[in-house]
This record gives sequence, C-alpha cells and structure tokens, in this order.
Amino acid sequence: MTKEQIASAYKALQAEICAGLEKLDGKATFSSDHWDRTEGGGGLTRVIKEGDLLEKGGVAFSAVHGPVSPAMKSQLNLEGESFFATGISIVLHPHNPHVPIIHMNVRYFELDNGTYWFGGGIDLTPHYVIPAQAKLFHQRLKTICDKYDADFYAKHKPWADTYFHIPHRNESRGIGGIFFDHLSENNTKLTKEQLFAYCSELASSFVSIYAEQAELGRTKHIEPHHLAWRNLRRGRYVEFNLVHDRGTKFGLFSGGRTESILMSLPPMANWEYQYEAKEGSEEAETLKVLGKNWDWVN
Amino acid sequence: MTKEQIASAYKALQAEICAGLEKLDGKATFSSDHWDRTEGGGGLTRVIKEGDLLEKGGVAFSAVHGPVSPAMKSQLNLEGESFFATGISIVLHPHNPHVPIIHMNVRYFELDNGTYWFGGGIDLTPHYVIPAQAKLFHQRLKTICDKYDADFYAKHKPWADTYFHIPHRNESRGIGGIFFDHLSENNTKLTKEQLFAYCSELASSFVSIYAEQAELGRTKHIEPHHLAWRNLRRGRYVEFNLVHDRGTKFGLFSGGRTESILMSLPPMANWEYQYEAKEGSEEAETLKVLGKNWDWVN
Repeated sequence: MTKEQIASAYKALQAEICAGLEKLDGKATFSSDHWDRTEGGGGLTRVIKEGDLLEKGGVAFSAVHGPVSPAMKSQLNLEGESFFATGISIVLHPHNPHVPIIHMNVRYFELDNGTYWFGGGIDLTPHYVIPAQAKLFHQRLKTICDKYDADFYAKHKPWADTYFHIPHRNESRGIGGIFFDHLSENNTKLTKEQLFAYCSELASSFVSIYAEQAELGRTKHIEPHHLAWRNLRRGRYVEFNLVHDRGTKFGLFSGGRTESILMSLPPMANWEYQYEAKEGSEEAETLKVLGKNWDWVN
Repeated sequence: MTKEQIASAYKALQAEICAGLEKLDGKATFSSDHWDRTEGGGGLTRVIKEGDLLEKGGVAFSAVHGPVSPAMKSQLNLEGESFFATGISIVLHPHNPHVPIIHMNVRYFELDNGTYWFGGGIDLTPHYVIPAQAKLFHQRLKTICDKYDADFYAKHKPWADTYFHIPHRNESRGIGGIFFDHLSENNTKLTKEQLFAYCSELASSFVSIYAEQAELGRTKHIEPHHLAWRNLRRGRYVEFNLVHDRGTKFGLFSGGRTESILMSLPPMANWEYQYEAKEGSEEAETLKVLGKNWDWVN
C-alpha cells in the first residue's frame, strides 16, 4: 500500500463525505478551493456555509511533502530528511444548538527512512449533552473499533478524553469520542492495510454517524437562551483549538495554510465574563457532564 | 518606593479609570469581582457590558506574590525564589465598528533577590483605520514618552509593532502604540520613581486618549457590512490573544485566573473562510495598512 494510494483514497473519501453532507443539509453546497504548497504538494479545502443544517463547515483534504523543517524536527521529534503527509480534516458547526458540533480527522504520515504511522479520531461537542445520544455516538465508534481490534475502543476513547480536555477551564471539549496517533504495524496487531482500513471506515462512516445525531436535534425548537449558550460553547471550541490543539498550533507556527487550518473556527462565538448557568438549568446539566470523563457505552 | 506603594497606586488608578470610563460610556457601570490567589495575593476584576459605547470591557487589577513556580522559572527565566507582581490590564470592545478596540497594561515585577522591572504598553485596534486618527493616537503616546526619555517613543513604538504582530496572518493587530518590558534603573536613564511615574502617567492618560478616539466614531452611521467586518476583526483579536500573546499564554498555562485572563476576549467574534475585501472598499484600505508597520507621527 503506497502513500499515493492512501492519498488517493482519502481524496475520494473527501468527495464522498461532501456529497453525503450536502444531501444531509439539503440546501447548501460545498465550495472547492485548490491550493499548492510551495515546498511540495497541496490540498483541496471544501467549505459549506449558511445551509439548512450547517451554519459553517469545512472538509479539508491535503497531501503534502518536502524536507523536514527545523520546526517539524523540534516539535514532532522527526528523524528523517523528508516527509509525506496526507489526511482529511472535518469540523461542522450547525445552526441549531440542539445539534452537536463534530470533528473528524484521519491522517497518514511517512518519512523517507521508511517509518510511517496513522492517526485520527472523531469527537462530538454537543451544545447540550443528552446522555442517550452520547451513548449512541460512542456505541457507533466502538462498533467500528471492535472490527479491527477488541482493545481499540478501550485505548482510543481515553486518548480522546485526555486530548480534548481544556485544562484552563477544567472541562472536556464535549463528550469525546476516539483519538489515536502514531499507529503502525510495530505497535498494533494490525498490518498497514488493516490500519488504513480502520481509518477509512471511520471516514466513510462519518456522515451516517453525524446524520443520526443531527436528525435527533435539527427540528427542535430554539429559544434565545439556546443560541446564547451555543455561542458561548463555540467560544470554548475556539479556546481549545487555538490554545491547546497540537495540530492547529503546529500548523500555524510551521507556516501552514492559515485559512485551511482555521476553517475549524466557528461563526459567531461569544465570551461572557463569569457566565454562570442557573442551578438545575439545561446549561448547568451540560456543564456537570463536561466536568469529568464518562464511560458512555456501559 | 516599595512594592506596596506601587500596588496601592495601581489600585487607585484602576478606580479612577473605571470612573472615567463610566462617565464616557454614559449608560453602563462596572461590576466588581474580588478574588484571592491560593498561593498569595489576589485581585479586583472590573467588567462593563452592554453600555452605550462599550459592548464589553474589562479593567483588571491584581497584586500577587508567592514562590517562583517551575513554569515561571522555565518560561520567564526567573532567578529568585519568590516574586511579587502587580498591574492593571484593560481591554475595551466598543459596539460601533467606527470606534477602535483598545488595550492598556502597566505592570511591576519584583523578585526576592532585589531585582525589579516595569513593563506595559497601550495599543489601538481600529476596525477601520483612519490615518488622521492613528496619527493623533501616536502623538498622544509620543508626548507622554518624551516627558521621560527622548528615546522612549523611538524604542517603544517598534517594540509594539513587533509584539502586536500576527505572523500567521502577516498582519499587525491594529495600528500598534507602545510596548516595553523589563525596564529598570539598570537599563534606562531613569530612576525607579521616574519609571513608575511613566507607567502611572500612561494609566492616568488612558481615559482621555480613548475618549478622543471614541468621540470621533461613536455616532457614525453603522451599516450591516460594518458589523460583519467588526466581528471578523474581533476574530483576529482572539487569534492574537490566544495564539501569540505571551501574557495570556503564560497566565493560562501557569494556572492563572482564567476568567480574568480571558476577559479580553470579545463578544460576538466571527470567522469566515477566505474572506476577501472588495477592491477599493474601506475594509480593503484597512487591510493594506495592517500589512505593514507605519511611522504615524511624521
């Protein structure tokens, strides 16, 4: 399985995901923005906005290569002279506060010395956490994980809990999901082909997983306090991405394409000093859940 | 001049500034939030919102002390066992896009080994840059600088240009101002008392400097495209503060009081993928100015 085959498969998955999301949205369509990277490779950033379901969303594909820069050496500890990286990255911000924000990423990295690894994950950020829906989401992910390795969910779910944590708020970004990095035949029971299949299945399942969550909330009644809360939670999403997310920080500091890196940022985010949810309110219930990591599937 | 005297003067300046801003706003008043720091000291965070002029603003005072933590040692290169720090920090976000966002900070730091220094600065972030107003702002700052050292403006203005730069956007945050750090009798021609007077005069001049800028824009007609642009510029402000601002990052990673650190974040910020200002528009003119550093006073 060559890097070209992986990149080509990811590019096809991007197209499939965008088509699926357009169907789900029912109103807006994705724009397409091809870009080249001076040092080698490029990408296709696809963005949707002002849809029926989605206020703003991006599905980015890239396949880049070139010399390992000093920034990459120091921040990623890479032992090699040149690299190849390809992946899909998605963030969707829905209008309706009763529909969750979602993020998915699959990526493949290879060095000229033959080292390679897969990384990725899916995580869900409901503005309002509904335990039954959170359970459904985690069950879907566990079902996929279990097809590849009975230990994957048990390993990749806590990895997401750790990764998607906002230390300065002592909150999780949402209800987590799965996250993994640096997987190869050397540290898993799987072959390279099987690891690729795991990532591909996450990507190809993405639309149906999100559709299920979206349909449960998209027609729910919206009151002003729901919108105000949605905007505050979007603010937290910005805080996580700009302060803590390793991919975002590495991208910005290593001269990546800013517009593609920051397509994850929401429309209309808000910050309010010392916001306090009313005791017993829906907002307070969600904050309670975000204060610790849960075992959703049992 | 003791650290207690400096802290006490800064606290009085905070009260004076808040009173001045309330008068300028004419509608809203500041809330007061006292807090204590477990390791020593505390602060008073004052916030105004939904005013006539100001949509959201914060004027924070703190005076904290305690052991130099490992994070402080590694990030600030401190050679001492315990520290004392006091300062005032202000960020104001006006409603009207024709009024600039403004930031001011004065701070004093002292170690148990006797080392001390002053830092601070004022910078202006107009949503729409008007050269005559930018010149006025810089002239005010230069006038203050010149009273203390004929070289201060020439040194502290480029310091702000360097500091308030957003590398991943290749833009300056606004039209800059002045910025300085680690000033003491050892690296300036001034005594400790004179350095304190310089910082105090910046703080006590803050309201009149901002009032002048605000009065020039607060009654200007607002169209929807002005608001849309204001929200995008607020997004840039968030990017600078969360990705680059050393004070914010240090505060968040060293366990500072999150709500006080992030009171600088705006209400209703927006991110739009690949926003492009129309050739010749007011927005395009502002972007041109933000692309490089200007000599405003000559």
